Amino acid sequence: MIRFFTKPQNISNGTILLSREDSEHIRSLRLRPGEFFVVCDENGNDYICKLEEQINTGGQNKNSVAQIIEKRVSNAEPSVKCTVYMAYSKGDRLDYAVQKSVELGATEIVLFASKRCVAVPSNIPKKTERLQRISLETAKQSGRGIVPMVSDGGGFKDILDIIKPDEASLCSTTTRAILFYEDESQIHLKDVLELNERSSPDISSYSIITGPEGGFDLSEIYLAKTKGFAIVSLGNRILRSETAPVVALSAIMYQTGNL
Amino acid sequence: MIRFFTKPQNISNGTILLSREDSEHIRSLRLRPGEFFVVCDENGNDYICKLEEQINTGGQNKNSVAQIIEKRVSNAEPSVKCTVYMAYSKGDRLDYAVQKSVELGATEIVLFASKRCVAVPSNIPKKTERLQRISLETAKQSGRGIVPMVSDGGGFKDILDIIKPDEASLCSTTTRAILFYEDESQIHLKDVLELNERSSPDISSYSIITGPEGGFDLSEIYLAKTKGFAIVSLGNRILRSETAPVVALSAIMYQTGNL
Repeated sequence: MIRFFTKPQNISNGTILLSREDSEHIRSLRLRPGEFFVVCDENGNDYICKLEEQINTGGQNKNSVAQIIEKRVSNAEPSVKCTVYMAYSKGDRLDYAVQKSVELGATEIVLFASKRCVAVPSNIPKKTERLQRISLETAKQSGRGIVPMVSDGGGFKDILDIIKPDEASLCSTTTRAILFYEDESQIHLKDVLELNERSSPDISSYSIITGPEGGFDLSEIYLAKTKGFAIVSLGNRILRSETAPVVALSAIMYQTGNL
Repeated sequence: MIRFFTKPQNISNGTILLSREDSEHIRSLRLRPGEFFVVCDENGNDYICKLEEQINTGGQNKNSVAQIIEKRVSNAEPSVKCTVYMAYSKGDRLDYAVQKSVELGATEIVLFASKRCVAVPSNIPKKTERLQRISLETAKQSGRGIVPMVSDGGGFKDILDIIKPDEASLCSTTTRAILFYEDESQIHLKDVLELNERSSPDISSYSIITGPEGGFDLSEIYLAKTKGFAIVSLGNRILRSETAPVVALSAIMYQTGNL
């Protein structure tokens, strides 16, 4: 069923007032009054709705009104919250990485610049805005219960500080902050995730960090290690920068029973 | 290190005669005699080589000759052989799915037409040739020990016959042929793979089947079931047709210790 997102404040008295953009979309889809679709409140609730007449909200603008038939908790949200920190990379690689991360159930996506980044955008707000739109469209298509936020985290050192210290493994037996490094050959993701499952089965969030085309600089790896981040391999094949977050998310969702 | 592939017959007396295409590439890269690169024999062997002078092989054509310094077994090939059967789909979705499947270690890729395919190419040989080139380029970049073959398997019924019956689960406790279906909600990949690991730890190959944008037709699911194929979910989020094989391969490589 076609899916839209709305803010909770647009839901009242058993009806939902859709945005002008979504109302435009409904017209372009030739949906008629009486037809059904889903509206999600971005908090994990799905509302099965029936289209009512469009109402005039001033000028040429018409907003569609949806009558709520049934409220359901979205079953699409994974039990584990994954925040993906991905380095800026070239061309449409980030578009792809964001789209696939949202499909796979990422909670949030944070972009950052690192030493070997070859393509930090000159206009970062414009870039994140574009990627936020991709997140919204993908959330609709994949049936998500939220729209993952896409934001800029600054530089590599900044994101190491953003990620809460207790997410790193220095002071605990669990590793919730994992940095993937192409030159790491000893520590594998399966070992880390299975150890976490045994040592703290109630683990509910992961932060994963993936690098740019050029990979991480050794000084960045040292810094992450001193801060207690797990430096982990994604196998013996060289993965492209946009592939790594998708593979890491797939593995975490698989291990935590969300695939 | 830069990587090329060659046929075993081009390797003799400690030297390798590179193809004209690769020799062109070497010239475009400005590689000089004495510089090092890797040549793989497509059988999982890597040869660390030193560039010698180029020799004239008639007309304007010059082929590069590589002196073998060291032979190593490629460590990039996974311990499990995965053949990916993917339905034809629109635009560049297959390009993407093939590239990512090769990065993740797929052994072979077979394309097929199913009932809801919206885009079966009019010129299939041209399409598979293009995808084979993508496979070669990706195999070079990701450091593979083979170049996965891309071929056309015909229709859905044809590929069910191509896949050996003993790969299906009807007559055994192991499931090596897995079809991913968006409407399946009970059987999860983790259950299947973990059961296989317990019941036959020596399992060495999987066949995975993913559908087109429109998904599989119910009649196709019934047919696969009667032939003993496992019909398996990839989670509660709707994955795009090009995403499903990547997620399935990631999970299998993860579970089998190849990530």
